Amino acid sequence: MLTQNEGMKNSIFNKKFAFMSKVVQGFSKLSKSEKIDWLITHHFHKDESARGLITQYWHNDEKLQGLHDDFIENTVSNFFLPLGVAPNFKINDEIYTLPMAIEESSVVAAAAKAAKYWGNRGGFRTELLGEEKVGQIHFCLPASYDRLNPFIEKIAPQLRQDLQDITKNMEARGGGIQTIELRDKTTALPHYFQLHVTFLTVDSMGANFINSCLEEMAKRLKVYLSNDAQWQEEAKDLEIIMCILSNYVPNCLAKATVSCPVEALEQEEGMSKRTFAEKFVRAVEIAQKEPYRAVTHNKGIMNGVDAVVIATGNDFRAVEAGVHAFAARDGQYRSLSNAYIEDDQFYFELTLPLAVGTVGGLTKLHPLVRWAIDLLGQPSAPQLMQIVAAAGLAQNFGAIRSLVTSGIQKGHMKMHLLNILNQMNASDHEKEKAVDHFKSHTVTHAAVVAFIQALR
Amino acid sequence: MLTQNEGMKNSIFNKKFAFMSKVVQGFSKLSKSEKIDWLITHHFHKDESARGLITQYWHNDEKLQGLHDDFIENTVSNFFLPLGVAPNFKINDEIYTLPMAIEESSVVAAAAKAAKYWGNRGGFRTELLGEEKVGQIHFCLPASYDRLNPFIEKIAPQLRQDLQDITKNMEARGGGIQTIELRDKTTALPHYFQLHVTFLTVDSMGANFINSCLEEMAKRLKVYLSNDAQWQEEAKDLEIIMCILSNYVPNCLAKATVSCPVEALEQEEGMSKRTFAEKFVRAVEIAQKEPYRAVTHNKGIMNGVDAVVIATGNDFRAVEAGVHAFAARDGQYRSLSNAYIEDDQFYFELTLPLAVGTVGGLTKLHPLVRWAIDLLGQPSAPQLMQIVAAAGLAQNFGAIRSLVTSGIQKGHMKMHLLNILNQMNASDHEKEKAVDHFKSHTVTHAAVVAFIQALR
Repeated sequence: MLTQNEGMKNSIFNKKFAFMSKVVQGFSKLSKSEKIDWLITHHFHKDESARGLITQYWHNDEKLQGLHDDFIENTVSNFFLPLGVAPNFKINDEIYTLPMAIEESSVVAAAAKAAKYWGNRGGFRTELLGEEKVGQIHFCLPASYDRLNPFIEKIAPQLRQDLQDITKNMEARGGGIQTIELRDKTTALPHYFQLHVTFLTVDSMGANFINSCLEEMAKRLKVYLSNDAQWQEEAKDLEIIMCILSNYVPNCLAKATVSCPVEALEQEEGMSKRTFAEKFVRAVEIAQKEPYRAVTHNKGIMNGVDAVVIATGNDFRAVEAGVHAFAARDGQYRSLSNAYIEDDQFYFELTLPLAVGTVGGLTKLHPLVRWAIDLLGQPSAPQLMQIVAAAGLAQNFGAIRSLVTSGIQKGHMKMHLLNILNQMNASDHEKEKAVDHFKSHTVTHAAVVAFIQALR
Repeated sequence: MLTQNEGMKNSIFNKKFAFMSKVVQGFSKLSKSEKIDWLITHHFHKDESARGLITQYWHNDEKLQGLHDDFIENTVSNFFLPLGVAPNFKINDEIYTLPMAIEESSVVAAAAKAAKYWGNRGGFRTELLGEEKVGQIHFCLPASYDRLNPFIEKIAPQLRQDLQDITKNMEARGGGIQTIELRDKTTALPHYFQLHVTFLTVDSMGANFINSCLEEMAKRLKVYLSNDAQWQEEAKDLEIIMCILSNYVPNCLAKATVSCPVEALEQEEGMSKRTFAEKFVRAVEIAQKEPYRAVTHNKGIMNGVDAVVIATGNDFRAVEAGVHAFAARDGQYRSLSNAYIEDDQFYFELTLPLAVGTVGGLTKLHPLVRWAIDLLGQPSAPQLMQIVAAAGLAQNFGAIRSLVTSGIQKGHMKMHLLNILNQMNASDHEKEKAVDHFKSHTVTHAAVVAFIQALR
């Protein structure tokens, strides 16, 4: 047996050893199975079940698994996100079934329910309000805007010409560089200017295209300044801080609207159609006025938006950042949607900035993304933007409708019921009994546990 | 052969038929294979390869697949999101390997690189700045705040007592209702008040708990008002608009910091360590001042945040909404991170509002989430918040470091190289050759295509 002192030393040694052993060199160069060996040894106390768990999520087809492995670095498995579908989305008189990749239990159900509701009332009307993408060269130069701006205007045509190698394919498809504008930001930071460049990227999201254009343009800017006799001195102090697209795209917008006479709304339990419509409008007004509510209101919109964005292989962090900044554009964070009643007609609308693509990125590479895009009938990027806006509006409608009638928990817990049952390892028989029972009883975690225990 | 007129009629008929046939009743009640039958018939022109594509992504183990199917409604397959790991995260002197579920090629690589960088310089220091969650009852009542507030203060202890059934387990774990406050919002909308309630939810995200509390509290509020002689009249006009948690959690914060002497920074190509540090600081200042840049800057942070949030079974839409609203809290959308040099020491820090959980929700249910939480050593929710903040800071460091040195495209395209090669169906031999060649050449889509075509 160890003395207390020896025990302490040992524990310090073990701690130090455990600490050291979790540092690893050259991990990315190991093979996938070597990486997993390392993880099992150093993080799972050599518990082989941890290996079994992640390897059983590998695809059977080795080549296909290799494709998925190559998407990122250090891939060890495939994270399963449920891929569901929400049918009956009538958008500008076409019917779509939306692919949705999402883990939250009630999202697809709510989308499908809202789609059906509005499918019977004329469907969603959507429109494209712009497709403009943005990129910026951020630089510092000890110069005045008034002197610099004419120079930028002079070299702008040359810059466009210089970028032909990068832009010609995009131009052939109808896109390319739109405007090049110098922005004076010297009041924000000393000597700070932006070359604010706008782009059309047609059916691609355009990040690589925009960043490649900007990096090349910055190199040229430096050359033109250095080679100009009037700018040689200042050019020595030119500092290109960075060249990067912006995920803020307030001129790349899609709008979705639903509308019907108040009297054509569905009869909700315990209130008139007029009361429902007014309460709905008030709930949206609250989200317009009150940031604590606006954040959750918009989060609900993004449940629908992100599910389609992910399923179609788009970058949901880009969309999220652009959307929430747009919600705060007037200095207060507000609801993205708007509702009102006019001449006894109920209107509900949503405008979203959405930089998404249907070509490039993962769209051709990820087989399930290809499938999702096929399911939507291979939309153009502007069409996808409008579909996504409709998905967001549907989700928002479903959430507010629940909130102002039965409350959010009823529907949410109903969808969560199967999760609770699975957690209890309920048999098919028990599940059937429980689903039947909870049609007329309130689902709470405790109530489900009690019901199953009583059955058993 | 059809006359032109007949052809047109036929096409109109087909269009109408196609339109009608995509509407479906009772879809959610179909079995999974019936749902897929319907999709193949109505959206894929009976192309069986579309069925093969999604069914080959099913898990072999039927019971396990059933578990994943039950997470949401209308599940047809599993969307594969790459699950990678980023080792060497030294956080408060412990070493972590982070699980990251993300589709963007450069995110895990950048995280691992930044972790290694700072692991050699003392690692990440993190702290918890708060754990407070928020929920609100939004209601209208024709009353003055001055008269209503004493009444709310009087019934608050009773409300807490009434909720014992819901709160007792949470209280036993150290959480529960913290404060109940009436907020006067009558200047925003006529008669509009909030019961603003704060909660501690310990290791759970707490959405179900908070919503259940609020819905019950609203019922009680109504009863107490109606039963009080002084409020009976107004109580008739009480309108509970909605009861819902807020995803805006500015008092549920984690902060992560890295720091080292300027001279201990790595030597970057073509600039002194001091120049690098100053340029880095300037890039962050730009993101503080300029919304177009701030959005993309914060999007980069969320690349790291969301990857860990998803892998640990948390709701990334909730986190995104709360984080971006926090970025706009002073009326302008700004960088979430901050950098400065003080006494020749470089500091870089990030504070994020993060409502995440390590129990409840999918944490026990989704086998890969369980695995990810085990990989992290089963952290508490406050620990996970700090790990996530470190992941965000690491990602932000990697992005800015690239931006102010070589530019973002070099690293990004290097990671994207394998995707381009897979798109071209490159053989292992071709891949090896290409990876070798592009170690010293710039990766562009065109250059990769040219290189492979030359090889062939």
